[in-house]
This record gives sequence, C-alpha cells and structure tokens, in this order.
Amino acid sequence: MRVVTFGEIMLRLSPPGSERLLQSPALSATFGGAEANVAVSLAHWGFESVYVSRVPPHALGDAAIRALRAEGVQTAAILRGGTRLGIYFAENGAGQRPSTVVYDRTYSAISEIEPGAIDWGQVLDGAAWFHVSGVTAALGAGPANAVAAALAVARGAGIRTSLDLNYRRKLWSESQAQATLRPVMKNVNVVFANEEDLQTSLGFHVGGIDVRTGRVDPAAYRDVISRVCELGPELVAITLRESISASDNGWTAVLGGTQLNEVLQGPRYDVRVVDRIGAGDAFAAGMIYALLTGREPLDAIRFAVAAGALKHTVPGDFNRVSVEEVDRLARGDGSGRVQR
Amino acid sequence: MRVVTFGEIMLRLSPPGSERLLQSPALSATFGGAEANVAVSLAHWGFESVYVSRVPPHALGDAAIRALRAEGVQTAAILRGGTRLGIYFAENGAGQRPSTVVYDRTYSAISEIEPGAIDWGQVLDGAAWFHVSGVTAALGAGPANAVAAALAVARGAGIRTSLDLNYRRKLWSESQAQATLRPVMKNVNVVFANEEDLQTSLGFHVGGIDVRTGRVDPAAYRDVISRVCELGPELVAITLRESISASDNGWTAVLGGTQLNEVLQGPRYDVRVVDRIGAGDAFAAGMIYALLTGREPLDAIRFAVAAGALKHTVPGDFNRVSVEEVDRLARGDGSGRVQR
Amino acid sequence: MRVVTFGEIMLRLSPPGSERLLQSPALSATFGGAEANVAVSLAHWGFESVYVSRVPPHALGDAAIRALRAEGVQTAAILRGGTRLGIYFAENGAGQRPSTVVYDRTYSAISEIEPGAIDWGQVLDGAAWFHVSGVTAALGAGPANAVAAALAVARGAGIRTSLDLNYRRKLWSESQAQATLRPVMKNVNVVFANEEDLQTSLGFHVGGIDVRTGRVDPAAYRDVISRVCELGPELVAITLRESISASDNGWTAVLGGTQLNEVLQGPRYDVRVVDRIGAGDAFAAGMIYALLTGREPLDAIRFAVAAGALKHTVPGDFNRVSVEEVDRLARGDGSGRVQR
Amino acid sequence: MRVVTFGEIMLRLSPPGSERLLQSPALSATFGGAEANVAVSLAHWGFESVYVSRVPPHALGDAAIRALRAEGVQTAAILRGGTRLGIYFAENGAGQRPSTVVYDRTYSAISEIEPGAIDWGQVLDGAAWFHVSGVTAALGAGPANAVAAALAVARGAGIRTSLDLNYRRKLWSESQAQATLRPVMKNVNVVFANEEDLQTSLGFHVGGIDVRTGRVDPAAYRDVISRVCELGPELVAITLRESISASDNGWTAVLGGTQLNEVLQGPRYDVRVVDRIGAGDAFAAGMIYALLTGREPLDAIRFAVAAGALKHTVPGDFNRVSVEEVDRLARGDGSGRVQR
Amino acid sequence: MRVVTFGEIMLRLSPPGSERLLQSPALSATFGGAEANVAVSLAHWGFESVYVSRVPPHALGDAAIRALRAEGVQTAAILRGGTRLGIYFAENGAGQRPSTVVYDRTYSAISEIEPGAIDWGQVLDGAAWFHVSGVTAALGAGPANAVAAALAVARGAGIRTSLDLNYRRKLWSESQAQATLRPVMKNVNVVFANEEDLQTSLGFHVGGIDVRTGRVDPAAYRDVISRVCELGPELVAITLRESISASDNGWTAVLGGTQLNEVLQGPRYDVRVVDRIGAGDAFAAGMIYALLTGREPLDAIRFAVAAGALKHTVPGDFNRVSVEEVDRLARGDGSGRVQR
Amino acid sequence: MRVVTFGEIMLRLSPPGSERLLQSPALSATFGGAEANVAVSLAHWGFESVYVSRVPPHALGDAAIRALRAEGVQTAAILRGGTRLGIYFAENGAGQRPSTVVYDRTYSAISEIEPGAIDWGQVLDGAAWFHVSGVTAALGAGPANAVAAALAVARGAGIRTSLDLNYRRKLWSESQAQATLRPVMKNVNVVFANEEDLQTSLGFHVGGIDVRTGRVDPAAYRDVISRVCELGPELVAITLRESISASDNGWTAVLGGTQLNEVLQGPRYDVRVVDRIGAGDAFAAGMIYALLTGREPLDAIRFAVAAGALKHTVPGDFNRVSVEEVDRLARGDGSGRVQR
Repeated sequence: MRVVTFGEIMLRLSPPGSERLLQSPALSATFGGAEANVAVSLAHWGFESVYVSRVPPHALGDAAIRALRAEGVQTAAILRGGTRLGIYFAENGAGQRPSTVVYDRTYSAISEIEPGAIDWGQVLDGAAWFHVSGVTAALGAGPANAVAAALAVARGAGIRTSLDLNYRRKLWSESQAQATLRPVMKNVNVVFANEEDLQTSLGFHVGGIDVRTGRVDPAAYRDVISRVCELGPELVAITLRESISASDNGWTAVLGGTQLNEVLQGPRYDVRVVDRIGAGDAFAAGMIYALLTGREPLDAIRFAVAAGALKHTVPGDFNRVSVEEVDRLARGDGSGRVQR
Repeated sequence: MRVVTFGEIMLRLSPPGSERLLQSPALSATFGGAEANVAVSLAHWGFESVYVSRVPPHALGDAAIRALRAEGVQTAAILRGGTRLGIYFAENGAGQRPSTVVYDRTYSAISEIEPGAIDWGQVLDGAAWFHVSGVTAALGAGPANAVAAALAVARGAGIRTSLDLNYRRKLWSESQAQATLRPVMKNVNVVFANEEDLQTSLGFHVGGIDVRTGRVDPAAYRDVISRVCELGPELVAITLRESISASDNGWTAVLGGTQLNEVLQGPRYDVRVVDRIGAGDAFAAGMIYALLTGREPLDAIRFAVAAGALKHTVPGDFNRVSVEEVDRLARGDGSGRVQR
Repeated sequence: MRVVTFGEIMLRLSPPGSERLLQSPALSATFGGAEANVAVSLAHWGFESVYVSRVPPHALGDAAIRALRAEGVQTAAILRGGTRLGIYFAENGAGQRPSTVVYDRTYSAISEIEPGAIDWGQVLDGAAWFHVSGVTAALGAGPANAVAAALAVARGAGIRTSLDLNYRRKLWSESQAQATLRPVMKNVNVVFANEEDLQTSLGFHVGGIDVRTGRVDPAAYRDVISRVCELGPELVAITLRESISASDNGWTAVLGGTQLNEVLQGPRYDVRVVDRIGAGDAFAAGMIYALLTGREPLDAIRFAVAAGALKHTVPGDFNRVSVEEVDRLARGDGSGRVQR
Repeated sequence: MRVVTFGEIMLRLSPPGSERLLQSPALSATFGGAEANVAVSLAHWGFESVYVSRVPPHALGDAAIRALRAEGVQTAAILRGGTRLGIYFAENGAGQRPSTVVYDRTYSAISEIEPGAIDWGQVLDGAAWFHVSGVTAALGAGPANAVAAALAVARGAGIRTSLDLNYRRKLWSESQAQATLRPVMKNVNVVFANEEDLQTSLGFHVGGIDVRTGRVDPAAYRDVISRVCELGPELVAITLRESISASDNGWTAVLGGTQLNEVLQGPRYDVRVVDRIGAGDAFAAGMIYALLTGREPLDAIRFAVAAGALKHTVPGDFNRVSVEEVDRLARGDGSGRVQR
Repeated sequence: MRVVTFGEIMLRLSPPGSERLLQSPALSATFGGAEANVAVSLAHWGFESVYVSRVPPHALGDAAIRALRAEGVQTAAILRGGTRLGIYFAENGAGQRPSTVVYDRTYSAISEIEPGAIDWGQVLDGAAWFHVSGVTAALGAGPANAVAAALAVARGAGIRTSLDLNYRRKLWSESQAQATLRPVMKNVNVVFANEEDLQTSLGFHVGGIDVRTGRVDPAAYRDVISRVCELGPELVAITLRESISASDNGWTAVLGGTQLNEVLQGPRYDVRVVDRIGAGDAFAAGMIYALLTGREPLDAIRFAVAAGALKHTVPGDFNRVSVEEVDRLARGDGSGRVQR
Repeated sequence: MRVVTFGEIMLRLSPPGSERLLQSPALSATFGGAEANVAVSLAHWGFESVYVSRVPPHALGDAAIRALRAEGVQTAAILRGGTRLGIYFAENGAGQRPSTVVYDRTYSAISEIEPGAIDWGQVLDGAAWFHVSGVTAALGAGPANAVAAALAVARGAGIRTSLDLNYRRKLWSESQAQATLRPVMKNVNVVFANEEDLQTSLGFHVGGIDVRTGRVDPAAYRDVISRVCELGPELVAITLRESISASDNGWTAVLGGTQLNEVLQGPRYDVRVVDRIGAGDAFAAGMIYALLTGREPLDAIRFAVAAGALKHTVPGDFNRVSVEEVDRLARGDGSGRVQR
C-alpha cells in the first residue's frame, strides 16, 4: 500500500549527550522533519512510503536523500533545486532544563517552492493515504499552497488524508495558522494534535483539562472534537503530554470523531526521555498504520500511543521500532526485560 | 585462595548510548560471559582467579585474553584452538524499550571443545571453589560434558562448587536444560537462579509470587528451595528483579538451604540501570566471595545483593567495584554522595 | 559591576558517560574550581568578572586561561608561575555508586603562592564584591594568607565579601579548617555552606535536621545561623541536598541572617543528576547576582536555588545557563517542555 | 540501465585510525564486499543497480540492507535466511606495517545458499550487465554453483558479464580456484584481475614483470591476455599496484583483449592510502560504467584507474565519488586543490 | 598595539578524518573566517586584537564570540543582529581527492549589514593596523561599502591597512571583484594575494610562471607587483602553492613593492597537509606581525611563510602556534624532532 | 626466560589526531615509560617479563598496573606507595611542527623511592637480563641509587644488563647525567643510545656524522663505541634518526663492541610517523630479544631496527607487534601489502 507524505527534511545538529549547544566542538548530524519522520515509520512497517519535498542539488541534499533511502522511503518524487537545506540545532534538555531548538531553515529549498512545481495528480496516483503537517504550511506561501493543493487532489481522488496541526510558535502566529489551516480542514479525514494545537492552530479551547494531574477525562475532549469534525474531519487524535521534567514525561492520547460513540483513551506511559522529538510523528504514523491495516479504533489508539512512547527511547527524529515491538508494548509489556 | 571458573568469553559489541544497533557506524567492543564475569569480580577482590575456556589462535582470541589479564584473571589454562570467538550484539534499552541481544556464537571455539581436552584434575588442583553456569552447558555436547566432568572432579576433590542456572531461551529448550542440568545437581553445593530459572532449568514452579509488586515473601521460596536441595545442593540463592522499565528496576534476592533455618532476604534496591548485563554474575561472585571469606549467611546475601546492585551502574559485563564499595552499600549507604 | 574571585582552577579529567576511571582509554578534559565556577556564572550574567589565581607558564596553564576567557572571565590578574596545574579526576556515579574524585593538586602553582604576590589593593580596586571559598584556604599557608589578606583589604575598602565554607575532607582536617576560617569570618558579609560545612569548618552543630526526609524545617537553622552571624557575617545561605542516589537528588536551600526576620526557604527540586559538581558554586553565584542586582531576599534564595538546580543538568564544572533560564525556573516552570 | 551483481555483503569492523585491532574498545562498523562495492559505485553513477545476496533475518541483516539502500542499490532481490552475517575485521596498516584482515565469515547465510534458491531468469530479466567475483565462488559449493548458473543464464540471455578473479588465499587454494573458475570463463565477457590473480586463479604466469619498478611494459601483458581470451573473455583488465608501503602505493592498470590492437595502459597515480580496500572493485565498476556508456577503450581504462585511485582516499569499502570527480581526475587534475 | 580586522566568522562543520561529508552522522564544529583567523593569530602573538563583525543574537552567535574570546580576541565591537550565522561545510581531501567547501552563508547577519552600522572612527581609534579581505567585500553591497569606508577612515587616520584579495569563485565573478576592489586599492598599504588572485581580483596577469615546477623566479613577479603598486599599495606579498596532491603541497611566497629593490623570496616548505584552510590568513598575520614589530623585509617574508607552513599542520581555521614556534621554523629547524 | 626492567610508568595524555594540546576537550589516556615499553615488548614476545616500579595506591596506580597486566607483564614486584602517578602530555606533531611533551612527573611515587625499598636480590633471582634507562636515574637520588644498586646486584649474579642512555634535557643537565651514568657503566653489558645521548650522557663526541644526509658511515662510530666499551660495556647499539619532518623520518642503527670485528649497520627505513614515542624502547627490546634467543649480531641489529620501525606505525608507547611481524619486515618485506 502506497502512502505519500510531503514536507521539509532538515539536517539536525545536536551536541553530545546532555551538553549545551557547542559546549564541545562536536555535533551529531542526522536528518528529520515531521512528515519525513512519518514516512520513515511507515516504510519500516512495510508500506510503500513516498516522501515529497524539495532539496538543493548539493552534498547536503544528497545526504538527506541517502538518509531517507536507508530507511526504505521512496525518494524519486523529491525535487532538486534551491540553495539551502533547512537546518535545526536541537539541544537535549535534562531535569529542569528544557530541550531547545534553534531553527536555521529560512530560505530553504522547500520554502521557496513554486506553485505547480509538484504534479499532485501523478504523485498521488495509486496512493491509499496522504499525510502532511501544519509545519509545512507554515514555511511560506508556496508550501502552504502546495499543502492545500495536495489535500484537494487527494480528496478528489478518494485518497484518505491526515493533517498534524503541529503548531510552531517560531514559524508563524496563531492567526496565520488559523487562516491557513481552517480552510483546508474540509479535505482532511484525520486530524492529529496535541493539547495546545487545537487552540493555536484552529482556535478551539479545550476547557477544564489539567494535563499535569496525569488524570485525563476523555469526556472533556468530546466537545472540542465535535467542533473540529464540523470543519470536515472524521477522526481527531490528540496526544497528551505531562511534562514532569525534561527527563520524565507522562504520555497518552485520546481518539474521537463522528464515527465513534465515545472518546477512546490510550494507555498512559511514564516515559524516560532519551529523545522526545518525533514522538508526535511516531504517534501519527502509528494511527495511520492501524487505520490502513483495518485495526479497531481502540487498538489503533493503543498502537499509536505505544509507538509514540517507544520513540522517546530512540535517539534522533526517526522511530526505529518494528510493528512487533510496538505491539508487544501495546499489549501490555512495558517491563523492558532483556530479550535474550 | 584459588577459584576456578569455566565458560565462554565473547566479544560484546554495543551501539553508543541508547542507540539502536548500527544506527550509527560505531560499536563499543568489550568482552564478557557469565563465568568470565564471575572470574573478574573474584580477581578484583583478591582471589587467585583462574578462568578456563577455549579461544581461537588469532587477534580476537588474543584480545579476549588481554581483557581478562588486565583485570587480574589467570589465563594460562585457556586453550587456543577453533576458528571463531563468540560474539554478541547487545543493544541497551531505555524506558519501555527492552535491551536486546543478538547472539553470533554458534561454531565458537568453546562450543566445539572435545571430550578430555581439559585435564580437570590438573586445572582444579589446589582450588577452593569451582563455578560454572547453565549457559556453558547449553553450548553443545562438548561443553555440557566438560561441565559434568568438572563438577564431578571438583566434588571428588572436596572442592566447593556452584552452578548458576542462567537459562537462555535462545540457546536451548527447557527440556534440554532440565535433562542436562538435573543430573549434575548432585555435585553442586550452591545454586544460583533467578525467578524463572528454577522453572525453566529444573522444572520447579515457584507458586504465588508476584515479583512485580515489589513485596517478596521469603516463605514462598521455602518449598522450592528444599526441592532443589533434594537434588544435592546445600544452598540456593535466588535473585529477584522487578522490571519497572528498562531504565528502572527493583533488585533483591533470597538465600535458603538445608543449613539455614529460614529463607533470608537481602536488601531491596531501586536501581537506575546503566547496564544490567552481568548483574547476576556479580551477585554470584559476591556470594562466593562472602562464603569463601567466612561471612555469615545474612552478611553474604547482603554483600551479594549489593554487588549485583552496583553492577547495574557500571557499563560492560565486568563489575568494576571494590570490596570496600560493596561493603559500604551493603552497610546501608546508597546515597551516592560524592566521595571527595 | 566588577566582581573578583580568587582560587585554584584545575584540569578536570573524567571518563566517558558512566564509566569508571580509565575503564576506556579516554578522558574528557575541562576546567573548573570553586571560585572559577562562580566567576564563570557571573561573567555569563553580565558582570565584569575578574578571576585571580596562579597558573604555570606552559600549555596547560594557557589552556586554563583560554577556558576562562571563552566564558568571558577577565584573566589579566592571573599570575603565571610554578610548575604544576592542579588536576582532578572526577568519575561520575550512578544509582547506588557515588561519584568519586581523585585529587592530583599538590604542589600546584597556586598552592605555592608567596605572601604579597598579589597586590590586593590594586586587584580589588573598583570591585563591588569579592568571593572566595574554604578550598582555597585549605591549599596551604600561602593561599590561606592570601585569602585572609584579600578579605581584610576588601572589608577595608567597603567591598562586600562572601565565603563558601566548602569543606573538603581530602584537603584538611576539621580543626585546621576551623583554625583558619573562624578568624576571617569577621571580614565576611555572606557565608555559603552546606549542611555539613557548618559543623566541619566552623564547629557549629545543626540539631534535629534530617535532610533525608525531604522536609526541611527552616526554624531549625535559625539558631546556627545566628551563631555564625556572631562571628561577623550578615547573611548565611545553606544548601540542602537529599541524596536519594547518585542519579537523583533533592535540592533546596535556606537563607537567614541578622537583616532577616525569618529563615527563608527556597523551592525544592527533584534533580536528575547529569553533573552535580559545581552546583554549590552555581548557588553562590546566583545569590551574589541577586544581591548585587538588588533583588529581595526571597527572590534571591529562589534564584540561587534555581541556578543550582540547573547546574545539575549541565556537564562540566561551569553553569552554562542564562539569567532568563534561571528566572524561568525560579518563577515555577520546571516542566522541561521543548523550546521551539 | 539495469546492472546485477551477486555476492556476500559483510559487516566490516575496524579499529580507530592507525590502531591495532581492539587496542581500544571501539570499532567502526560499516559494510562491504567485492560485488556490493561494485553495486554501490554503479548506483552512485546513475544505474539501476541490483544486488543479489542472502542475509539473515535479524538486526544485522537489516542493517546490511539499510547500508545498501542508502547508496541507492536495489535490495528487493536479496534473500533473507540463515543465521550469520559474515564479518571481517580490517586493521588499517601504516608505513611498513601492512593492513590485515581477520575473516569471520564461515557459516554465513550466503555460504549456505541452496541450489536453485535464486531464480536467475527473473533476477537478470532486463539487465544489461552481470558482475560477480571469485570471492563469491570461493565461499562454498552453493555459491560456486550459483555463480556458474548466473553466468550461464546471463550469457544465454545476451547480457554482458564480468568476473573479477579476486583471489583470497584465506578462502581457498589455487587449485580449487582454478578448478572452479576456468570452466566458467566461457561465459565471461570481461575479466578483472591483479598481477597475482592470473597466476593463482587461472594458472597463467605473467613473465618478466617487476611491478616494483613503477615502469610497466604493457607488451609483457599481451601474451597472458591472449591466453585468458582463449578461455572465452574478450577483454582483460589488470590492475597493477606498487606497494611502496602501507601508506604509499603506485596504482595503474592495463587493458587488452581480442578487440584491441594493443595493450592500453591507464595513468599511474602515486596514491596516499587512506583505505585501499575496495580499490579493485572501484576499478571494476569504473570499467563497467565506461563500457556501458560507450566510452572508447582508452577512455575506459583511464576512467577505471582514476576511480580506483580515488577509492584509496575514501574510508570504508564504498567508493563515494561522483562521475564528475572521476572524470576530473581522469582528465588530469590530480592537484587536490580546494574546491571553494 | 591595537589591530583591527573586519569580516565574517562562520560555523565550520567538517566530517571526521578523511571521510566524505555526512558519510558518518558526526561533524566537528569549529569557527573560522579569513579576518577572524588573522585576528586569532595576532591575539596569540600579543597584540590587542579587535575583531569587528555582525552575528545573530542566539546560541550560535554566542558560540562564535566564545570561540574568539577563548583565543584572546577582543569581541566588544561585534554587532549582534540578523538571524543567521554563516556556515560552511569543509570536507578534507586526501591524495588525488581535493578538499571541498559547501557554503551556506547567504543571508548571514554580516551580509545584511546596513550602511553606517559601524562607527569606524570609534572602532579604529588608536589602532596601528586595519586588515580586511576580499571575501568580506564579496558578501554584498553592505559589507562592500563597509570595507571601503573602513579603509578610507583608516587611511585618513594614518593607520596602516592591508587587504587580502582572497578571491572566491562561489561568491562573486571576476568583474564584480575587480569593480569593487580596484577602487579601494588607493587606501591599502599592503596587499596579500595568491597566484590566481591578481588575475581574478585585479585583472593583472602574471606571465611565465609555472608554480608546479617548484622553481619560482622572483623576477617574474616584479612587473605585476609594480602594476599593483601603481594602484596605491606599497607592498605586495604573494603566496605560491604547489599542489602535488591534497595531502602534499609545496609552499612559499614572494614579497615586493615600491620600497624594496628586489622581489624577496621566502623559504619553500614541503608541507604535509593536515588542514590547509587558513594558511593564507596565517601568512597575512605573520606579515602584519613582522611589519608591526619592525622586522626587516626578508625576515618578514620568512616569518610569514613559516607561519603559513605551520598552519597546514593544525586542524581548524586558527593557527595555534606561538611566535617562538614560527621563529624556530623560520630560522631553519623544520626537522620536527620531539621537544622533550 | 625471566627479564626484569625498572623505571617509571606514566599516564600519557594526548589530544586527538593532529590537534594541539587541549584544542578540543578530549584526551586519549594510555600508559608508557621507557622501561615499561621494553617490558611490554618482551612480554608480547614470550618472555616472563617482570616490571619493577612504585605507583600510588589509588585508581590511577591501579589503572597503570591493569595496562601492564593486559600486555602480559608481571606486576607483582611493583611497590604501592606515594601520592602521585607521573603524567606526561604528548602532542603529536605533523610536517614542520614537532611533537611536544609536557612533563608533569615531579613528586611521582617512583621519584620518592627510599633506599633499600626494593630487595634486588629477590627481584632479580632467576633473571636472565636486567634493563634500565637513564630516564630512571634522572628522576632523583632515590631512583638513581636504585639503578646503581640493581646493576651491581645483577652483575654480581651474572645476569646480563643493559642501559639505554635516553637523555632528557627537561629532567637533568649533561653534567648531572654524566656524573650519574659513567660510574654505573662498569656493570652494564649492552648500551643503547641515539646520536646525541653519547655526547650528553657520557661526554663522547661522535665526529664527522651528518645524520641528515641519510648516508651513515659505520666506521665513524668505531671510535666512540670503543671509548664506551672502555667504561665496561661489551656492546653498543646506536639508533640513527633522520628527521625529515615530524611526519617522515629515516630510521636505522649501528651495532659495535668488543666482540665484533666491525660496526654492523641495520637496514634503513623511510618511516611514516604515526607515533614515534617508544621507538627507541622497541629497538632496545628487539636487541634484548635477539641476544637472549641467540641470534647472530647482524640478525640482531636487523631485528631491532625492524622492531623500532614498526613502532612508528602503532599509536601509544607500546609496540604491539609480534615476532613474526618483525621478522617479516627484517627479512625484507616492507611493502605493506594487505594480509588477507
């Protein structure tokens, strides 16, 4: 089954261990980006995973493509052009010190994409699913138009679609986000969000929730989910993160929508944070996997939450875990006993 | 005092930090193996520690011997022959992601050892203790015969013996383990086991224990310990591990046997897992140390549990801690305050 | 504003990650020392931070100065002479295994400083604050005399002064410490101490405190604080560390003195220990910063405790955090949420 | 254009820099193998490069495939089975100390391949070229039969074929090599060899050549080339290496055959050896590239020699250079001036 | 003595050892830039070295300043503003494979500098020398205007000036360079160039020189030097590099001008290239040092060539050598004997 | 056969690759020392190699012993005491930049050894050879006395002895060296020296030698060798190093003495310098090996020179090469061809 994602892949530069940025003259250099991360999970899990982007025709662009291909992602639809590959510097937090991100992605090849540069009819031909995130729409007018065009073409072709709201304060304002994302909602089947995204990207307030208590009341999400669905989507999956510290988080999610009688809650995990970047993408990939393989909604939210929980334990943006590993955790074995 | 151990030493290859295997093109390369780990602890603690094995006559075999010699282990009795040194790839888990081991040890030099290759009368001459584990017996007919022969010669010479059941599902079946290990029990003085080993390697069920609760009822072990002792041994030491996650474990142990009025329980530690491989071996070494130096049973189980707890904090198979460090913890100081 | 500190800067050599010293043939090589650490914090936070010491005129001394200059510390007052730069080997603990320090600082350049080598009148000219610690006084007669001289000159010039008792058992005895430090108290405005320092360095017993319970009764400190103030100081700031293990600590502090009606307590943090060396220095720097910038006492103790808490998350001696980061934590955000 | 290669891909483990094997507890972990190296070059240079092999269905096999995919090699035809991935330990020499290789490849998945396991008709369908080396034939009866079958099917389908003799003393004897390789020569179009291979693998002596002098007399190769061609091949390309030391080599090659009037010689390079493993494979890939793209014989030998020369400067088995880089060198610019 | 330089400092990212860019997921992260490199040398050698630039007000800008301060450079005149710090990816060549540079410096903070942003009268107050390079002028109109303004102010204030032509094909065309640089020559005292710069940046052809032969005829430079001097400068120093390969270079220079009777030639060194980036800057710094300290012209060219030769042996942009080390080489000891 | 050596083992700290000391915050940490290096070679080559020294009873001393034991050296005779382990910082040179050594070995445990601390009669019992170097005698009165005592006891017991003059300008003056070493010559059988040592340590001028030419005239050494032999020794082996640069050296040696009719010269190697520290020790070990195994003088000098040549290619002080590897080079194969 063919799944298509579209977005920006960036060079991710991080200092060693818990060091602050450039404390030592060394950086680990990997690649990531919201939709690329989803594409990698889906490739690992057996789909024909096609990633669409634009990267410059030099050694950094080559390396980005190499990183994707290594994970089994199809890269033939990636355009080569522009002069910059986006970079982000990610410093890993610990305890009371938060992780921080310094973006150096302005003027990147994808941000300067021209209208019509991608032939969505061809790219989406034969696809079962199309996924994109609000980050891509936030990169500029070109990418925002491409997101809208892709969703419209996909909807027209009967391809299921998903959008992760993925609000980034450093990229755009709430009003910009809402002005861009609300109109495309009509072509989205499944929405992914965290607690804040619904407010920032769609303007919907989730009342009476204190994620810090660790006790989530699914009923509290019923109202906001139905308001989202009024914009078009059928399913809304919301991840809930309890940030005890940069090292320890609680992690769960809820799933609701027009096709469900109630808001379903996934398991809650106390996660030891090795690297939390990409956990939301791992969750989205888990949900797409489960829905495309016909799992029941409750199984789907369990699988997606488990996939996201495991991502916290893997360095880098990509969620390097197998379906079997996710299922073992989703079925209840979080003991971490040695497999030997 | 001379102590002899017999088993397989392997090259251990692990990815950096919490990475998945070969996520980066780098592996740390150390050495380890159940009985080698015991030998290293005992050498560190002042014994004349003799390790018996068979390693190939090439650079990898040389390096294995160099690693043992560095820690003070006597290597003169190691045979050189065969073509392969066993390798195991050990990926460190974190949180809900378990550590995993990929064995590449088939056809190793020790697994192809011939009957009579080791002159046990000579090797054990003057020894105070002989230790071996079920892993060695699981490597094939040759090693299994050597284990049986060594235990018989030791018992005949009045040397105390210990066997760590150490069941490995990837090496043999439960029925194979029981058929091999039950007959040699008559020549074993002290048995080491974890909760599962008694079931898998000897076929004894430990009823009504839920190690996950963190509350251990020593009485529950009384019955199974006496059943083990009916096979020959005088003492049975059972480690109990509460796997909260791959990063956090509870760790304790019980000790019982024909010479003890009751089942003694050691302290329970909340261990932060740096590297849990070798903790059981560190525990066994701690018990052998305590028994050989004439400590009381309650002191012995405390020392052994503390030794095992400290092993969780040291990378690699070997337990690089001193008697003083173990005693400080066994006496109650687990505060981890800086020593300066 | 100009702040002057005086002490020993050492080469700090540490094994990788959680390894034991020289387990691998690699050491990280950074620099640190009680007063140097304070100087670095104050330079980061915008002061003209002048560090006074004596380092040898070779490549190691050059590197120490380079390390200080990189952080913005003024190094022009550092004397060049002697033959050795002090070294300390710091092994990072984990769980029940404590961190350990091996000092190799005897015969260091600073320890052999001659009387009158430093012209304190000139060095302190225009300074707003002078800070030193008991470690410096413990290095020998020369440094102890220099400490006394500096404090006297500063007091005479109306410069505020602080002394961190900083007792080190490996450097001197309690009676030596008391004989040296009690006489200089009359020239000290602010005293920094941990729970043990008051006993070891001044001979004052703090009764009825069990730091392990995590519940601190500020009232219990009222008596000892007033006894310290009888020696001269106006303010006494005491850090309180609950060592649950080498990996997890509780961390808070109290502040009292002749100008305060009550003993004020800072917030208590559950810190995940990345590197706890320098936390006390970060606390002292935080207090000096807050007092020099005119913050209220309660704000000051909150800022200082937060600065110390963050230091636990940064590898190396230096506290690489900004005023904004400390304030964010002091104002209550310890969630460690990603800043992106 | 589709090119198919068949062989064994191994995990390559090397110590850091110029260290001896396991001098430090660290190994770099990359992948390589004669035909895999050829496949990677051809993928880099724009061909549809299909690699056929058999790797075990575990994490090491996955990693081998990931490494190939990253470079653009098609891996869909790789069989999964067996238990071991071949390993080789490669220690980099320097000066008078030669590089050394310790093989640990017995019982590898590919060595145990069954007759008929690969459907060559399907695998070679649409291919323009098939390449294999003597190393693969040396792995055992199964691989040797597969080599013979593949060459026969390719020849039958009009696909051009090449064989790199690639004699390895540690794998088989000269008589074994000759008995296996001479019969398949009738189905080979292009033979690759070094000075020794013709003697060891085919039994043909090259008279009167002293490669050490640095002066190669192409005429001396005329005779042996025509004797090879009598076995079937049309072209014979022979690499000539002058080993001044492990750090400095001379490198050139000659090309002759039934279609050429004379023996053509490529340029001679003084190569500074960063990593000479894979230079012969880079040469073979260069020749295949040149022949498939219709270059003249003299251009072909120049391109192939330049490709091999550049390989000496790239760490790892794979030749990470572009057609443009090879052409720049082949056209005469070996100055190594910075490209900026 | 105060020396001022002006330019762009960049983050330099390089792969380990001889690897190709992003072959491994690791980059070394240092800082450099033509004038920053000169500033560092001059700070090491005892001058008050002031560096002027514009860097963004975030963690990368902070790190750039930290890197300069560590080496003793005065950074108070650096403006903070803009959003990007320039980056360059530098891959180290070997043998026939050239080093390559990928620039990612467009839109950097310095390139967007506004006219009048720097108060040159204030910055240059009290300076003895001002140095800049053509790279800075190539960054855009803003920087080019600042270069012209600075040279004019300096000349007006009687401060000696130098310009390193430093042509970069990836930054501008020859006609752009000439149009920008020829007019400012009237305010330049000393010009630095390599063989190509005179042609590309000034349009002057150096006839009859074959730098490859290793034999330089100083007379051949007499003519071009006098043509340069007609534009204003009094001294012209030309570095001559014989690129035998990326690993081995010949290195020398000539010095001529209106005040010299003949063209002076420095010594010629066979350099083993560890890192050749910054060699020209090291040469320029050497010449400035020698002229400011009143050395004779022949001594000056010897010192400058030796400084440049040593730079080839030091990783990173900065020339970490002392005056004593340069003088030892300039006086003739290039034996590299251990100093112990 | 038992061989005893006596000296100081130090912690050796080196920056990565060609970096300058503390350019990066990382040091490799190995161990070495003139006699320890000899002991390691002899242990590798099958002797019972006993090393005598004094190291402090802390973690650094433990690590030094662990390093020796790993290589097979007997460490039971090493005294534990004192407070410091000597340290030396060794920066690797390149090209025209020499390697440099910063010693931090004053006050080391061995330098403070008391008269009579070592029972030489017991230590040397059963030994075939005793070796020491001038470095040990240079450490102070205690070590100098121990050297004299050891040589006297050895000579009295008929044990063959050797002394490597090994002059170190940073440790003592020429007159001190001569006053200490000339008197012990009467108890030395074999003297090792380089070109300068004979002058500095014994006061003998070697006339008319220009080692730089690469042409050694053995006859020129005849006179100085006979003058050395008049002091007692029978054999004098002199290494000759042509320092072309820090990266490239010529390396050979001559051997003469009362038992030889002529001065024998070993082969001359162009060595590519990976690490030249310890080459002289490797040479001495090679000579001792050859003499103890009864090789002819010409074979002995060839073996010793080859051993020293290979040392240049191995990082660290220890010469990690086998007898087979030395013999292969001594027999003429310096081609560095891959062994596979």
